[in-house]
Amino acid sequence: MDLYEEALQLHREHKGKIALQAKVAVANAKDLSLAYSPGVAEPCKEIYRDEELAYEYTAKGNTVAVVSNGTAVLGLGNIGPTAGLPVMEGKAVLFKSFAGVDAWPLCIAATEVDRVVDFVKMVAPTFGGINLEDIASPACFEIEERLKRELSIPVFHDDQHGTAIVTLAALLNAIKVVHKSLQDIRIVVSGAGAAGIATVKLLLSCGVRDVVMCDTKGAIYEGREHMNPLKDLIAKNTNFEQRKGTLAEMMQGADVFIGVSVGNTVTQDMVREMAVDPIIFAMANPDPEITPIDAKAAGAKIVGTGRSDYPNQVNNVLAFPGIFRGALDTRATTINEPMKVAAAYAIANLIEEEELQPDYVIPKPFDTRVAPRVAQAVAEAAMVSGVARVRVDPKEIALRTRRLAHIQD
Amino acid sequence: MDLYEEALQLHREHKGKIALQAKVAVANAKDLSLAYSPGVAEPCKEIYRDEELAYEYTAKGNTVAVVSNGTAVLGLGNIGPTAGLPVMEGKAVLFKSFAGVDAWPLCIAATEVDRVVDFVKMVAPTFGGINLEDIASPACFEIEERLKRELSIPVFHDDQHGTAIVTLAALLNAIKVVHKSLQDIRIVVSGAGAAGIATVKLLLSCGVRDVVMCDTKGAIYEGREHMNPLKDLIAKNTNFEQRKGTLAEMMQGADVFIGVSVGNTVTQDMVREMAVDPIIFAMANPDPEITPIDAKAAGAKIVGTGRSDYPNQVNNVLAFPGIFRGALDTRATTINEPMKVAAAYAIANLIEEEELQPDYVIPKPFDTRVAPRVAQAVAEAAMVSGVARVRVDPKEIALRTRRLAHIQD
Repeated sequence: MDLYEEALQLHREHKGKIALQAKVAVANAKDLSLAYSPGVAEPCKEIYRDEELAYEYTAKGNTVAVVSNGTAVLGLGNIGPTAGLPVMEGKAVLFKSFAGVDAWPLCIAATEVDRVVDFVKMVAPTFGGINLEDIASPACFEIEERLKRELSIPVFHDDQHGTAIVTLAALLNAIKVVHKSLQDIRIVVSGAGAAGIATVKLLLSCGVRDVVMCDTKGAIYEGREHMNPLKDLIAKNTNFEQRKGTLAEMMQGADVFIGVSVGNTVTQDMVREMAVDPIIFAMANPDPEITPIDAKAAGAKIVGTGRSDYPNQVNNVLAFPGIFRGALDTRATTINEPMKVAAAYAIANLIEEEELQPDYVIPKPFDTRVAPRVAQAVAEAAMVSGVARVRVDPKEIALRTRRLAHIQD
Repeated sequence: MDLYEEALQLHREHKGKIALQAKVAVANAKDLSLAYSPGVAEPCKEIYRDEELAYEYTAKGNTVAVVSNGTAVLGLGNIGPTAGLPVMEGKAVLFKSFAGVDAWPLCIAATEVDRVVDFVKMVAPTFGGINLEDIASPACFEIEERLKRELSIPVFHDDQHGTAIVTLAALLNAIKVVHKSLQDIRIVVSGAGAAGIATVKLLLSCGVRDVVMCDTKGAIYEGREHMNPLKDLIAKNTNFEQRKGTLAEMMQGADVFIGVSVGNTVTQDMVREMAVDPIIFAMANPDPEITPIDAKAAGAKIVGTGRSDYPNQVNNVLAFPGIFRGALDTRATTINEPMKVAAAYAIANLIEEEELQPDYVIPKPFDTRVAPRVAQAVAEAAMVSGVARVRVDPKEIALRTRRLAHIQD
């Protein structure tokens, strides 16, 4: 039986991957009077008096909505909300298993920006945070921007920021291996979709100076044709030498290639033209921009992909469970750049310098040490950057993450 | 410590009453490849090909949204969505504990009919059914009507139909005790809100002929002042003798009083004027229209209330878990009158004739035999009335309910 048949069987056997768990028993009249009528009126009245008490008396503070309209699911494209359910349930399982966050999939029949925004605003009272997922570009940018502005709970589009954070983590370790520094490297990012744009923004916010982004027309620079407001913004903040040309031309002399585009778009010749010790993150799925075998044969020093069957898998699961754990536990009003950067450093620093190798610059996706460390770092960053609404001991957050995710020593 | 302090403590201790349960493990790379990327693409593709397969590969078929805008929570009124959360979580616990249904509270910031309708339509792909809860009248009627028309999954406003069904169940047994029949009894219903109107409709649909509904202005009859479209409809279908007058006048000679109004509005004198062996369901909360002690002292033969500290508690929990179990397992497109009537008879018939007593006409709320019987009866009625999309063995539904709710013999 191959992987796909096995996956179908797993989903069929359990009829999906998630269920509700009741945390209190209702076995007799007393139970019922406490958990339901008439006792339940008391927490209702308390929350009506002070809405903040919902974090004390309900599951809100540990609960995240995984909202998708199914317009950009995995590499499958616009398959709609119902067909997107297995992915969102999978996401919920990862939230729970890695960080003890209760995440509920909400796959919605809504493609227009206004309706998605309105939906999330309506449902926000129930949740401690919102994880947007698999929403097509460019709608995803406006949806996230508006929700971040209008809501006071964290809103996080994982396809953008999850990928950006884990890529940054991998890059931080990769440059250690080749003894280069963020300030001095030249990076080429191929693919101007949700993940590409978020990655460039995050790189700039943590000190990278020389980035060129390419789309299917080549380098993005100010005044080019075939632009849009997002690319205009990218042009303003990258490619300060205003280089023009193809992806291949841009890769000449570059230290790092980050691919979030489509498979088989980078040749061995292009790798050969890069600077010494090239770093390649070829994350197109299922086929990377160039296979690790071809890239290494052409001289790449470090190669990462999105796939589990090659070394250095850049997988969002390293980031989002711990990020939401840290954001929820500090009741952060948002997930800001300092929190994202802190998450990336926490992931990278999990690998000790002496363990670092070209084929091990990023922890494995199921490394259970990651989420507690990320949660702790994100909680610290939330407090330092002033978006936390409660103060906590970051070490306690790490312990709590381990406890909630049932991680054994 | 009193009940209310104890209820607060229970809610605080667990930080709410619900959590997510992952049904599959993600402990290693293989697990991850099956439950998430890349294996998860396969059920997605299957559901894209045939949406019905969501019932095989996801939790949709066992999942119900408990949607409330918090405009009419318990007896507390319009306390808003956040303060309504403890009630909706309690509802979810009852769904799970009594019938193994996974119900997720969605408390929404939306009061206008259009927005609530739009919200539910957007979120419908995720769920097998929709339980509307604690939405103020008259908005609740239009919201439910429109959703029933526009969606092909069951939509059920529990405040209306749950109360109506359990009241009917209690009535069916009460008239057995006093040897009267549905066709011949005169019933007065006090309170023209959501529960009252649904109760009248259900009584009429199962053979009751003589019903008079009263609001604060007295009997409702055709052509009266202070009417609205709903009361016009009630007037057309009840009170065929066009009786006019106060509640007290209407109760003269009546066999049954059903109160879904406000406390302390029925006097002992009013009970004394009723027909022989009066039946009183005084369900205003927390104070009934008349206390059981006063009613009995005035000659009432059978008294029920909404309270757990008196006999004959009319509690919706007897109905909704089993109703949704039966509707979900037959993939019913709606919950229609035959299914509601079947539920009422299933609840009533759980008490054998020889067990029936004036103080035991309705099973206890935590009687775990109820939901399996209701589920079975509702599944049968769904199939017979042509709204089931799959055929099942009703006995298997009862067994499945017991299994999912972990009911021991």
